[in-house]
Amino acid sequence: MKKEMIYEGKAKKVYKTDNEKKYIVEYKDDATAFNGVKKGTITGKGVINNKMSALLFKRLEEKGIPTHFQELLSDREMLVKAVKILPLEVIVRNVAAGSLAKRLGLEEGTQLNTTVLEFCYKNDELGDPMINEYHIKAINLATEEQLEVIKKYAFLINEILVEFFKEKGIRLIDFKLEFGLFDDKIILADEISPDTCRLWDAEDNKKLDKDRFRRDLGDVISAYEEVLGRLQKNN
Amino acid sequence: MKKEMIYEGKAKKVYKTDNEKKYIVEYKDDATAFNGVKKGTITGKGVINNKMSALLFKRLEEKGIPTHFQELLSDREMLVKAVKILPLEVIVRNVAAGSLAKRLGLEEGTQLNTTVLEFCYKNDELGDPMINEYHIKAINLATEEQLEVIKKYAFLINEILVEFFKEKGIRLIDFKLEFGLFDDKIILADEISPDTCRLWDAEDNKKLDKDRFRRDLGDVISAYEEVLGRLQKNN
Ligand SMILES: Nc1ncnc2c1ncn2[C@@H]1O[C@H](COP(=O)(O)OP(=O)(O)O)[C@@H](O)[C@H]1O
Ligand SMILES: Nc1ncnc2c1ncn2[C@@H]1O[C@H](COP(=O)(O)OP(=O)(O)O)[C@@H](O)[C@H]1O
Ligand SMILES: [Mg+2]
Ligand SMILES: [Mg+2]
Repeated sequence: MKKEMIYEGKAKKVYKTDNEKKYIVEYKDDATAFNGVKKGTITGKGVINNKMSALLFKRLEEKGIPTHFQELLSDREMLVKAVKILPLEVIVRNVAAGSLAKRLGLEEGTQLNTTVLEFCYKNDELGDPMINEYHIKAINLATEEQLEVIKKYAFLINEILVEFFKEKGIRLIDFKLEFGLFDDKIILADEISPDTCRLWDAEDNKKLDKDRFRRDLGDVISAYEEVLGRLQKNN
Repeated sequence: MKKEMIYEGKAKKVYKTDNEKKYIVEYKDDATAFNGVKKGTITGKGVINNKMSALLFKRLEEKGIPTHFQELLSDREMLVKAVKILPLEVIVRNVAAGSLAKRLGLEEGTQLNTTVLEFCYKNDELGDPMINEYHIKAINLATEEQLEVIKKYAFLINEILVEFFKEKGIRLIDFKLEFGLFDDKIILADEISPDTCRLWDAEDNKKLDKDRFRRDLGDVISAYEEVLGRLQKNN
């Protein structure tokens, strides 16, 4: 069923299948940060991110968000709908952290007055620059209508995930989404994992995400395991 | 009438007057670029920018845009309404140039599909970072309603100025605006000059603006004079 690899990214590989409308995504243990400048391996990460993404995509589908997720195939592989990815990183923020805290001169952890959306142009050569909705239209990265759908989904996904993580004692600080076109419709693609979310323990604000790797905080894989363990409990 | 100076910026000084609702703005010959890293003097610039701003503010008022401009007082001074400046730089772009060309990987001079608005947080310590409308709301730089008025004015100002410069054989590539609050209403403030606009000759695309200073192209003041001369003709 798994056929030729069509793309190897920083964290995953994408394969064709017998069905031209389906791909297999394979999650690797490779980790990168700061636009590929920092590189490493987090043994076991691929397995966790695959399972966690599957669990979260299922949850979102149940709540009415269309996603690329079809089924788990193995520890590291999921079957997904083959989409045309829009070259946009859609970032949703509830609390100031990382680049936003730096940009606005806010202390990390500052609650934001309003949910903040950001768009980055997914373009490694340009360093994934932040852009706005006018830029998106000016260089045809998405149509006005597609952008409206993406924004609607991004806010809904945030509500669903904030609530779900909260039940598990985790604060969803911010996260990154990628969307794609399947039969000309926008659907959620890529992954949702501690690689793409900032997740802080609700009790003590311990970081349970990729910032442990970015900032050399140690215990990376045990933090990822902790998150998956909590999400799987009573679920 | 001119009383104590309340602010000295990079290009202008602002003075109180007998009337607490009016300020005097004095235009200097100082020039800075790259967030103050490059410094210089362009002899005569203050006089030109004062006159050109007066001329353009008048034109905009005639077309229905409320501005801070009251009257020219001298070669370097204008009387303006005293406003509470919103800490936002509002950038309007018709053609890719400068930071936008770099950010999106476009050749300078590329016509944009749609007029592009950008906002920067006017904050020297942070380096005037680009922000979006969610950031503006999240840190209370302007209300939703103020932002809508600012955007409406920015597009209108662009239409009026593009047309006016075109009549004078000049292409308006991009420009920066600042708005302030006067009696709780948004009005256009600051300046409109070759310091704050990119202006290219319609015939040969010769740069007639501050890029001559930024990029050491020479003939800075004669380019500024050329623009003012053309704007004053049959006007
Ligand atoms: N359903 C899908 N169909 C096609 N491509 C996808 C799908 N889901 C994710 N992708 C793309 O596959 C790649 C996943 O690999 P990743 O290692 O995350 O790459 P990158 O280093 O580009 O972020 C990404 O480019 C992502 O946009
Ligand atoms: N009508 C006005 N009332 C109050 N402040 C104004 C008005 N017009 C402009 N300003 C402010 O006065 C200053 C003008 O000086 P400038 O040299 O341009 O300063 P800067 O270096 O901060 O850009 C700016 O901070 C600008 O925002
Ligand atoms: Mg990726
Ligand atoms: Mg200024």
